[in-house]
Amino acid sequence: MHPTSSNPGPEFNQPLGGNVMPRFGGPASMFRLPTPASADGLDVAIIGVPLDIGTSNRSGTRFGPRQIRAESALIRPYGMATRAAPFDSFQVADVGDVPLNTYNLAASVKIIEEFYDSVLAFDVKTLSIGGDHTIALPILRALHRKHGRMALIHVDAHADVNDEMFGEKVAHGTIFRRALEEGLVDGGKMYQIGLRGTGYTAGDFDWTRRQGATVIEAHECWYKSLAPLMEQARGRIGTEVPTYLSFDIDGLDPSVAPGTGTPEIAGLTAAQGVEIIRGAFGLNLVGADLVEVSPPYDVSGNTSLLAANLMFEMLCSFPGCMRRD
Amino acid sequence: MHPTSSNPGPEFNQPLGGNVMPRFGGPASMFRLPTPASADGLDVAIIGVPLDIGTSNRSGTRFGPRQIRAESALIRPYGMATRAAPFDSFQVADVGDVPLNTYNLAASVKIIEEFYDSVLAFDVKTLSIGGDHTIALPILRALHRKHGRMALIHVDAHADVNDEMFGEKVAHGTIFRRALEEGLVDGGKMYQIGLRGTGYTAGDFDWTRRQGATVIEAHECWYKSLAPLMEQARGRIGTEVPTYLSFDIDGLDPSVAPGTGTPEIAGLTAAQGVEIIRGAFGLNLVGADLVEVSPPYDVSGNTSLLAANLMFEMLCSFPGCMRRD
Amino acid sequence: MHPTSSNPGPEFNQPLGGNVMPRFGGPASMFRLPTPASADGLDVAIIGVPLDIGTSNRSGTRFGPRQIRAESALIRPYGMATRAAPFDSFQVADVGDVPLNTYNLAASVKIIEEFYDSVLAFDVKTLSIGGDHTIALPILRALHRKHGRMALIHVDAHADVNDEMFGEKVAHGTIFRRALEEGLVDGGKMYQIGLRGTGYTAGDFDWTRRQGATVIEAHECWYKSLAPLMEQARGRIGTEVPTYLSFDIDGLDPSVAPGTGTPEIAGLTAAQGVEIIRGAFGLNLVGADLVEVSPPYDVSGNTSLLAANLMFEMLCSFPGCMRRD
Amino acid sequence: MHPTSSNPGPEFNQPLGGNVMPRFGGPASMFRLPTPASADGLDVAIIGVPLDIGTSNRSGTRFGPRQIRAESALIRPYGMATRAAPFDSFQVADVGDVPLNTYNLAASVKIIEEFYDSVLAFDVKTLSIGGDHTIALPILRALHRKHGRMALIHVDAHADVNDEMFGEKVAHGTIFRRALEEGLVDGGKMYQIGLRGTGYTAGDFDWTRRQGATVIEAHECWYKSLAPLMEQARGRIGTEVPTYLSFDIDGLDPSVAPGTGTPEIAGLTAAQGVEIIRGAFGLNLVGADLVEVSPPYDVSGNTSLLAANLMFEMLCSFPGCMRRD
Amino acid sequence: MHPTSSNPGPEFNQPLGGNVMPRFGGPASMFRLPTPASADGLDVAIIGVPLDIGTSNRSGTRFGPRQIRAESALIRPYGMATRAAPFDSFQVADVGDVPLNTYNLAASVKIIEEFYDSVLAFDVKTLSIGGDHTIALPILRALHRKHGRMALIHVDAHADVNDEMFGEKVAHGTIFRRALEEGLVDGGKMYQIGLRGTGYTAGDFDWTRRQGATVIEAHECWYKSLAPLMEQARGRIGTEVPTYLSFDIDGLDPSVAPGTGTPEIAGLTAAQGVEIIRGAFGLNLVGADLVEVSPPYDVSGNTSLLAANLMFEMLCSFPGCMRRD
Amino acid sequence: MHPTSSNPGPEFNQPLGGNVMPRFGGPASMFRLPTPASADGLDVAIIGVPLDIGTSNRSGTRFGPRQIRAESALIRPYGMATRAAPFDSFQVADVGDVPLNTYNLAASVKIIEEFYDSVLAFDVKTLSIGGDHTIALPILRALHRKHGRMALIHVDAHADVNDEMFGEKVAHGTIFRRALEEGLVDGGKMYQIGLRGTGYTAGDFDWTRRQGATVIEAHECWYKSLAPLMEQARGRIGTEVPTYLSFDIDGLDPSVAPGTGTPEIAGLTAAQGVEIIRGAFGLNLVGADLVEVSPPYDVSGNTSLLAANLMFEMLCSFPGCMRRD
Repeated sequence: MHPTSSNPGPEFNQPLGGNVMPRFGGPASMFRLPTPASADGLDVAIIGVPLDIGTSNRSGTRFGPRQIRAESALIRPYGMATRAAPFDSFQVADVGDVPLNTYNLAASVKIIEEFYDSVLAFDVKTLSIGGDHTIALPILRALHRKHGRMALIHVDAHADVNDEMFGEKVAHGTIFRRALEEGLVDGGKMYQIGLRGTGYTAGDFDWTRRQGATVIEAHECWYKSLAPLMEQARGRIGTEVPTYLSFDIDGLDPSVAPGTGTPEIAGLTAAQGVEIIRGAFGLNLVGADLVEVSPPYDVSGNTSLLAANLMFEMLCSFPGCMRRD
Repeated sequence: MHPTSSNPGPEFNQPLGGNVMPRFGGPASMFRLPTPASADGLDVAIIGVPLDIGTSNRSGTRFGPRQIRAESALIRPYGMATRAAPFDSFQVADVGDVPLNTYNLAASVKIIEEFYDSVLAFDVKTLSIGGDHTIALPILRALHRKHGRMALIHVDAHADVNDEMFGEKVAHGTIFRRALEEGLVDGGKMYQIGLRGTGYTAGDFDWTRRQGATVIEAHECWYKSLAPLMEQARGRIGTEVPTYLSFDIDGLDPSVAPGTGTPEIAGLTAAQGVEIIRGAFGLNLVGADLVEVSPPYDVSGNTSLLAANLMFEMLCSFPGCMRRD
Repeated sequence: MHPTSSNPGPEFNQPLGGNVMPRFGGPASMFRLPTPASADGLDVAIIGVPLDIGTSNRSGTRFGPRQIRAESALIRPYGMATRAAPFDSFQVADVGDVPLNTYNLAASVKIIEEFYDSVLAFDVKTLSIGGDHTIALPILRALHRKHGRMALIHVDAHADVNDEMFGEKVAHGTIFRRALEEGLVDGGKMYQIGLRGTGYTAGDFDWTRRQGATVIEAHECWYKSLAPLMEQARGRIGTEVPTYLSFDIDGLDPSVAPGTGTPEIAGLTAAQGVEIIRGAFGLNLVGADLVEVSPPYDVSGNTSLLAANLMFEMLCSFPGCMRRD
Repeated sequence: MHPTSSNPGPEFNQPLGGNVMPRFGGPASMFRLPTPASADGLDVAIIGVPLDIGTSNRSGTRFGPRQIRAESALIRPYGMATRAAPFDSFQVADVGDVPLNTYNLAASVKIIEEFYDSVLAFDVKTLSIGGDHTIALPILRALHRKHGRMALIHVDAHADVNDEMFGEKVAHGTIFRRALEEGLVDGGKMYQIGLRGTGYTAGDFDWTRRQGATVIEAHECWYKSLAPLMEQARGRIGTEVPTYLSFDIDGLDPSVAPGTGTPEIAGLTAAQGVEIIRGAFGLNLVGADLVEVSPPYDVSGNTSLLAANLMFEMLCSFPGCMRRD
Repeated sequence: MHPTSSNPGPEFNQPLGGNVMPRFGGPASMFRLPTPASADGLDVAIIGVPLDIGTSNRSGTRFGPRQIRAESALIRPYGMATRAAPFDSFQVADVGDVPLNTYNLAASVKIIEEFYDSVLAFDVKTLSIGGDHTIALPILRALHRKHGRMALIHVDAHADVNDEMFGEKVAHGTIFRRALEEGLVDGGKMYQIGLRGTGYTAGDFDWTRRQGATVIEAHECWYKSLAPLMEQARGRIGTEVPTYLSFDIDGLDPSVAPGTGTPEIAGLTAAQGVEIIRGAFGLNLVGADLVEVSPPYDVSGNTSLLAANLMFEMLCSFPGCMRRD
Repeated sequence: MHPTSSNPGPEFNQPLGGNVMPRFGGPASMFRLPTPASADGLDVAIIGVPLDIGTSNRSGTRFGPRQIRAESALIRPYGMATRAAPFDSFQVADVGDVPLNTYNLAASVKIIEEFYDSVLAFDVKTLSIGGDHTIALPILRALHRKHGRMALIHVDAHADVNDEMFGEKVAHGTIFRRALEEGLVDGGKMYQIGLRGTGYTAGDFDWTRRQGATVIEAHECWYKSLAPLMEQARGRIGTEVPTYLSFDIDGLDPSVAPGTGTPEIAGLTAAQGVEIIRGAFGLNLVGADLVEVSPPYDVSGNTSLLAANLMFEMLCSFPGCMRRD
């Protein structure tokens, strides 16, 4: 599964084509891929995690997986700018949603963790559709059991390193403090990109910096390409360290991603979001997520469509994804 | 498959339960039922027909099947008012969408007809999700080949008996003229309910009446139950004649069904729509459709949710559907 | 111009047909009629009055005329339930909008009055598209100069008989007090239908009653036909007295007319609204208006479509409108 | 505080008037009333409970209190149909929101209960703004400690008597089973009105009936006034028994109340909803709630406006509310 | 008609001014210009083409011409940045919509072609309002008959050079392959700007390149001015070659143009779109179009407003448009 | 009140925290601050001015103050990029709305002026929430009486220097001509940033330039930071001159601020808007406003949220606002 230009054969699942079934019809699975009952035999398992009770402001991300899948019907199999060919490179399928308990956040976190443990029993990478950002914590826990301490590329408007929220240790704004405390993530190989807005103290972002993380605030990104930043990140993390990519859609500007729960102004452009993900090609990505899309606030459906495209780009950045001539 | 209270056993497909998987998660199939590749072994095949190029005003019904399926996640397995138990009575599944050619109406009509021919090769009833009303014509043609001339219960704001539209013989406003001309439907056993609005001539509804049909205009329905009307219809059609139920959502008032393409004011209430479908229990229904839901105009999703509920009621009115004690 | 079934010939303007130009194309004039520069030669002049600075809560009715015209593209030339044929009976055209001063309510009221004076210099009836209800006052003043004191059919949730609002004598909630004080309207031949909600005093509706008006509150209308009421009104007003019909869309329930500025719950159904207008056939209508549609709150466009249909019904109730066999 | 027509004097809070401050301006408190820090000295305390993590389908009711307050700016002080004068009868104020823990349903239920205990330490009635229906359970528990077992008028599409949901004993669909089990409510004096839709078993509504409750399904209500039903209820419950009124907005039809999380078709009209509340005048109401309004699904704001009006009607039905001449 | 600063006199049509008629009133013609029945005497004819049955995903562009005209009411007569004065330079009018057959794509393509032939019988340039991109093919065919092979500036997210879609040779994704095959356009003088997203093969854009076209992918445009690109294009095409400008609104980023049918992320900014059109001044433009605006997905109306402004910029780039001092 | 890092003590009002009361609950005051009846004792008084009858196109800004306050619930007390600590620096409160007369623009302008006079009787700065831009004129008049002629930073798409609109001297497009004529503002210390679009003459912006103002058109700002511009402005205005900041949200691009009444394409980014406000730190700001947010066109609420954040940045730029370590 190293990049080559030889076609690996028809054994890989292909998205249902737009000239076989109109894009507005057909199954509403992710990328119109098959939906097997288990991850057995997959290289990449796409998993929905429709959790939104860990969110502090607008809710609605519970409908993220359904809506992102619906909008993903427009995605075709090749990346034009990168010539990436994920469906010639990997066996990918949509294994469905985690059956969480929507009345109990702590119970759901445990259910998610166990679900990922069972998926990771296979030799598979996970690509997760949120749901609110809380889901990243149980995913990281499960991945840590398999891969050990990981590097992290974290795109977000918020650092998500509060110690607690309303007295709770686990909610969508505390997860990376937990991940660092639990040793799931290596602070020295952690990038937080796009942070901005207002905080409870002026030093909210300093805590992560003290853990060794590189924090790139949004205003450092304005008007310019993030390709150099990602080149630096690849140099620092290297090609071997298991790396997780967690992409909160609110890292991007509300103009491109209106459908989210805690938007912050003056964020990254869609192009910058794409550059971050494309710049992760070359890292040893073992999993990725796209979180915090809230369909009730996404009237045109375009935030979900953006999310689907970013998830396609994630597939293209998984190690071994071929580039076509 | 006659109504009894004995449980027919676990061999029938059941909707995925709301305490097994939250309603906002899980597959977006109709009623969260399985999605087999063929109709083999089914009593009722649910089929999506995402056609909207036969429509004269607002488009968007191409997204009807996807959105109605998504909203159907809220439907539970038993009808509370009727105590009907369709999933204890029938093997039902969602066999997916007709792969129509969205650039060519005539070609699509032919594709639909052939698709239904292939489904009807099995001993199955069809429950169809539109799409615009054009789809009823190829469905009736296929059913006619199997069952011969049929009775018709037609709920609509419009008679759909134009001779042609913009020079075309087949479009969403001509289909029942074609169906009568081709002998698919027995004019003497045809009910059109809910007609209203404005027309090209004052006598637009007279043509159907001259074919023997019973036309019930909307203003004849205001402020009262339609149960007596349906009792009359059952008496006139009888229990043996193969009967088709075609339900255009614009038969109902725009207040209950805003998401449709050619709304007409002062239509039927949702309760009246339910009474018509419940009143069809006792007829020999061989197929039914729910058409003209246009999601882009259904901001809250409630028109699709209404459609999903009406389709559940259709299942409950298929002959042989048990009522529980 | 008395009702007969003889076709008066092709000299009358006809709505542009849906098989000549698709309904989503063509001019966005009212009923897709011609747009002459003056009312000369017309039987009925349709006039837009895009005023919304007389409104007390949500604004937006300034876009009423444009949006109602756009939605009127769906209206066909004959009323199906009544067999009315307005475009075979009258020369009707859309003479455009009053060029009001949107920064000055008092000045605009004067501009409207003068505009109607100039239109009424011809032997024409006016059918007006609001705008907020303030517009009815200058219209009534102009009509009064031509026809003297008039009977009034007033559909509304509110009595609009405040003495003043925020110190102003003319605003959308004071106009019928002014109309009665100025003798434009005969209190003894005035019907207010659909009043409801909350008021500044418990006796807000008593003032009109003391002027001799018949006030029918909404709760008196629930669950039943208003045809008997209109029969009574016709008896009381008679066939000769010049009569004005003022229809505030908020007289209807917010479920059928969500797009309005001061909605009140539990109002009239669309069917009841239609019955009131149809029941005005036989009166000597000299003018009518449809006011208070606010497009920014009418997401589906259906409130505007309702308004367009009600205005068609008004045309059908103007004296002399033929009924077809 | 018994009904008389003598004005009780200026000591009662009055809604900020629309000619003092435009309705679109001023404080966004309920009915534009004062917002004291405690319930001391009040007859009726209005309380917001922005909980939505007990809901099974669409979320968003967390914004119910804020949006209903905003829309309540349109409410004037007198009921026109009833001539009720609540602000001449009672000292009413908006005491704000319960500071719940949005990450923990069980903890929030406890916080709500304690909050109501503290409010009920004063001689006050509570009028609560949801939030999802879960909130009614802790409210009933607090009220029960003060008043003992209560009669219940429950308007809803759903019985809310599941034993558990996803393994949890307390969520928005289980609360009245809990209330009956805990003896908070007297089954023999319990009315459930508007139930309908689909269920997990055909006998879902029978459990309540077996507790002695009167269950009025929606189809029993179609096309007719509910005044007779409420007369019967008043007869059965009597004027002395402490009675609670719990009004789930989804009891009403989705056409009038689109903005809710688990809509069911063919429900009660707004008029019927009003009749139920008006029919509760004469009972010994000790508290009431209006729940399940979900603003993200209420695009026009009219569901919130409906809720505000229904809450005004509740005030008018609290015992002792004067009727003006 | 060469650029001078002398005022050419009052014989040219002027947009109806905002202080003559409020912008929310008056005719909904393009730029509030007159609407003559033919193109006789015009320098520029504005034509609506409300076709959307050539589209592969979301429909709705059939309402593009009506909505873009409505929003164009805000446009004033002079370009502030360019000091361009199109209405002092040209006789411009809105000649209405092509009466296409909405049930038959092939027939509509022929109707459009014939309509443009009849318009081009006059010495006039066309400025077209789509509709989906399919309309550009019949327009190019008609223009080619008059002007011969043309240069092309094509702004789009997609190359639109598929060989066929669902077996059809003409649909919105095939037109520029047809245009090149038919020799309507000179591949060596063709610019495609803004291409991006996913494709059916990694080499989808190479086909055009092989025809000699210059393809500028979106990622080549990020963060920078496109003025240099347009300078290059002017140099390559020259001032004499008849040139067509085809602007698919999805060339721009979904954040600025949400209301379109097949949006692709990370596109051009509005400023870049403006620069492309302004950069076309100096070319020998013989026609231009603005396509793929879909109003049902344009909730705020701002995509239509953007389109109206871009069409104003097109007028300003037509050869001979004066610049004021 | 000079910047220091010593905590000034608990006497300053603090925004209600998100872990004390969920962000979707609690009072809907600006920044969830207290709402005293007067400005006595305040350093900064936040004032709502819900006027929208001075607007020329889309209305709805009357709901700006209410909606911006609601969305401001998400703002936390510290600026992350600037480390600014406004609530440690100033006593800030929300003193409510100006009780304007919504039926009379001239009267309202006078009411606003008098309201500000009464506020400015205290030693306080004002931070105003519009409302349409007309409000800036009476505010400037009141401020001028206190501070004399002021410098002005004016962000807008429009110059707002028309001599009159529809014959009126005061409306949202004339105010800065009035302000210059009346000597409220020093033309030589006036910056207009973001101007663009179309105008009544090509020289519309020249009038301001002739008054000595610096006009920065939007196209001069594309693709680059505005920090250098603001450095220049600070140099030119100096630290002593009383300066007013007037921020029309339509200065920003419609992609970031869709909810406004007269949007113009290709405007400033949110980042540029932030840079302008941050760049005003160091000037002697005596007041600021944020105007022209129209909630009915702001479906997601994000324009209001943007406005709330920009107003927070304004607080941070008021002289004396501390920066934390």
